[in-house]
Amino acid sequence: MEKVSLPKGTRDFGPAQMAKRSYIINSIKNVFQKYGFLPLETPAMENLSTLTGKYGEEGDQLLFKILNSGDFLKAADPRQLANGNWKSVTPAISEKGLRYDLTVPFARYVVMNRHEITFPFKRYQIQPVWRADRPQKGRYREFYQCDADVVGTESLVCEAEIILMIQDAFTTLGIKDYSIKINHRGVLAGIAELLSAQTKESSLFVAIDKLEKVGEEKVKEELTDRGFNSASLPLLFEILNFKGTTAQKIDFLLSKFSSSEKGKKGLEELSRVLTLVQNFGATHTHVEFDLSLARGLSYYTGCIFEVKIHNVGVGSVSGGGRYDNLTAVFDSKEKSSGVGFSFGIDRLYDALEELNIFPPNTTTTSSLLVTYLDDESFHYGLKLVQNLRNQKIASEIYPDPIKIKKQMEYADKKKIPWVVVIGSDEVKTGMLTLKNMKTGEQSKMTEEQIIDFIKK
Amino acid sequence: MEKVSLPKGTRDFGPAQMAKRSYIINSIKNVFQKYGFLPLETPAMENLSTLTGKYGEEGDQLLFKILNSGDFLKAADPRQLANGNWKSVTPAISEKGLRYDLTVPFARYVVMNRHEITFPFKRYQIQPVWRADRPQKGRYREFYQCDADVVGTESLVCEAEIILMIQDAFTTLGIKDYSIKINHRGVLAGIAELLSAQTKESSLFVAIDKLEKVGEEKVKEELTDRGFNSASLPLLFEILNFKGTTAQKIDFLLSKFSSSEKGKKGLEELSRVLTLVQNFGATHTHVEFDLSLARGLSYYTGCIFEVKIHNVGVGSVSGGGRYDNLTAVFDSKEKSSGVGFSFGIDRLYDALEELNIFPPNTTTTSSLLVTYLDDESFHYGLKLVQNLRNQKIASEIYPDPIKIKKQMEYADKKKIPWVVVIGSDEVKTGMLTLKNMKTGEQSKMTEEQIIDFIKK
Repeated sequence: MEKVSLPKGTRDFGPAQMAKRSYIINSIKNVFQKYGFLPLETPAMENLSTLTGKYGEEGDQLLFKILNSGDFLKAADPRQLANGNWKSVTPAISEKGLRYDLTVPFARYVVMNRHEITFPFKRYQIQPVWRADRPQKGRYREFYQCDADVVGTESLVCEAEIILMIQDAFTTLGIKDYSIKINHRGVLAGIAELLSAQTKESSLFVAIDKLEKVGEEKVKEELTDRGFNSASLPLLFEILNFKGTTAQKIDFLLSKFSSSEKGKKGLEELSRVLTLVQNFGATHTHVEFDLSLARGLSYYTGCIFEVKIHNVGVGSVSGGGRYDNLTAVFDSKEKSSGVGFSFGIDRLYDALEELNIFPPNTTTTSSLLVTYLDDESFHYGLKLVQNLRNQKIASEIYPDPIKIKKQMEYADKKKIPWVVVIGSDEVKTGMLTLKNMKTGEQSKMTEEQIIDFIKK
Repeated sequence: MEKVSLPKGTRDFGPAQMAKRSYIINSIKNVFQKYGFLPLETPAMENLSTLTGKYGEEGDQLLFKILNSGDFLKAADPRQLANGNWKSVTPAISEKGLRYDLTVPFARYVVMNRHEITFPFKRYQIQPVWRADRPQKGRYREFYQCDADVVGTESLVCEAEIILMIQDAFTTLGIKDYSIKINHRGVLAGIAELLSAQTKESSLFVAIDKLEKVGEEKVKEELTDRGFNSASLPLLFEILNFKGTTAQKIDFLLSKFSSSEKGKKGLEELSRVLTLVQNFGATHTHVEFDLSLARGLSYYTGCIFEVKIHNVGVGSVSGGGRYDNLTAVFDSKEKSSGVGFSFGIDRLYDALEELNIFPPNTTTTSSLLVTYLDDESFHYGLKLVQNLRNQKIASEIYPDPIKIKKQMEYADKKKIPWVVVIGSDEVKTGMLTLKNMKTGEQSKMTEEQIIDFIKK
């Protein structure tokens, strides 16, 4: 036997997993649509010129590249081939790559279709992405992203709606105990100004972002190593460690930010977003102003979000933020402010499993199996199964004439909840036996009664 | 501006196309589920050892291959690199490829999971596939396939159910005028026996398959070129040109097949399938026994199908057949008879467009836009839009305070059918103005009345 396997870091989704994944995806899709987002799908392959340089040097290394068709060597420089200089050879033998996220393809779509699009453009996109990362628990080389973005407006109504959508999705999924962490790049810039570290903003943010994971001492070490003035560190940690409600945090920072315009603007925007959530008639009890939230991605310019579910061993299940210039990478003249966020399907799946809150009927198995004892009842069964299907009841009839016990086993293994048993008596009288596969209970019913019963 | 483009043969699906594609896909998915088929998804990337050699030499050339990560040159033979011997170099620098169809990944899944699967296993799979074909009208390098297969039974009930599913899907989609062409490999083998051309079966089938496209003379030429005895050709065309009902065709062939066991068995199976369709209580008025239907794929062993919609300029929109040994390519000990078929989403899309039978409401736009005249009505509108969403009505509020005319334009461009206008009067009285964007009609309603009205 030829040994068959899956590529490292990839997975099949069989029927049981598909049912649960579809439940999550459909729940999120319904929320996106309720808030006016429209679906977009882009191809798996993009030109490497579209992808390269958008995710930093490390990201470029993680792009899956597609070998050009036909004689891919003819465009390669023979000397570089001979020298084993694979980095220089790559552009000559590969022009396309697999998409790495949904943001860059979305930006490309907006640039290519800007004359047809009605702005503000609200799109959602649920598709797999590919990264040549080292596979490990919970990290795959193919995984789904589930993004919603608005481009073409600076209105903070969009940020408020992101909070509403996260709350709405979690209510639908039955997730109750979670935090929507929020921060603002302006607030982070204000902190950098306060520490006179404007030129080292990004190292500062990267270090701050690790606070929860590695602790205060490690962050201090990293900052000292990176040349931060150790005299400014006590002020930094006074700010980061400040405990209080969101309102108290805002007041506290306002008192510090008297000379930072960026910092003040950030705080104002955060306040405004929370006020808007209330104006929508909703609460923001799940929202937590988290000064240590920095998010790695450098393109965020306004509010940033990250969502953690409490008491489960999975990382953040959602995140996003505002960017001032999504399409600038393709078109420097086009300035399109936008804000977006993303749900991590795999982590949500793991969280729902861990919390054991998938609805019990999250399955796509048939509702009913028609079983039969002989050829006459088989023919009766064919008509019955088709009548059930015509009533939109997912039904099966076992295709081969095997013993009824085997037919029952099939229903049992496939977790089909109801079985109709047909023998010569049933054919004569039209009173069929309906069996509950869970309890074993049986009752006699007509076809019409069965249809009515299963439909309920 | 950097020039951005899509790779040749790939497409974006914007909101309008997505709505129509989802309509087709969901219609088909519902049919599959009604007949007891369960969903499966496999990764886009497969090991090349899984894919290579399964689609013939031409197919191997059309596989998209993924460059190994990191220093892909180190495993390549320097002499072959220097000689530009790209074919020999390929296996050293590329271990993975993009899936070419859904059948081989399905077979791999069955082999890898055979101990957990309950047979007969009915699975459907709706995912994109990739082929490095020359792009042309209606032929893409990335396109969706939409397959349903049963493995683990030889029962002709499955063939009958395929006919039922095609009819069911077409009824759902509103397609009325079409043929389900059916033939049987045994019948084709019988014809080959009759012509004493058993050893040239495959050239015979390939030539016959072109009959409709190129006409009788060209097929005769091809067969003569391939060394067929020209004396046997009149008999071949007597058979192919025989006109009559399916029953008449079967009788006619039975009279010819007296000495061909394969041929007789094929005819018996075809009859049995049609009888089963009737036993299910359905008709087979759309089914047409087509002796010239041969389908290129050599792995079919029993019934074969192909579906054509009349009066539209698209090719066959569905096809399939029975294969005796799906998994033999991976495991020669495992013999798993199966039967499957596939819908072509792109062609169905084109056909529905051409017939103009997409339902008028095939769109995912919001149902309603809340517009407002001033800050007070904006705040009123925020609550209103959220109440509508809580009632599962997809609604939007324009995020920026622009003139009401501009807000209306937004609704108009996005084809949002209803607009609520809020001004100070409306805020005072709670009687809101609901405008029909198609007719321009306006009426005054309370919030509750609007909710009830839109829900209907």
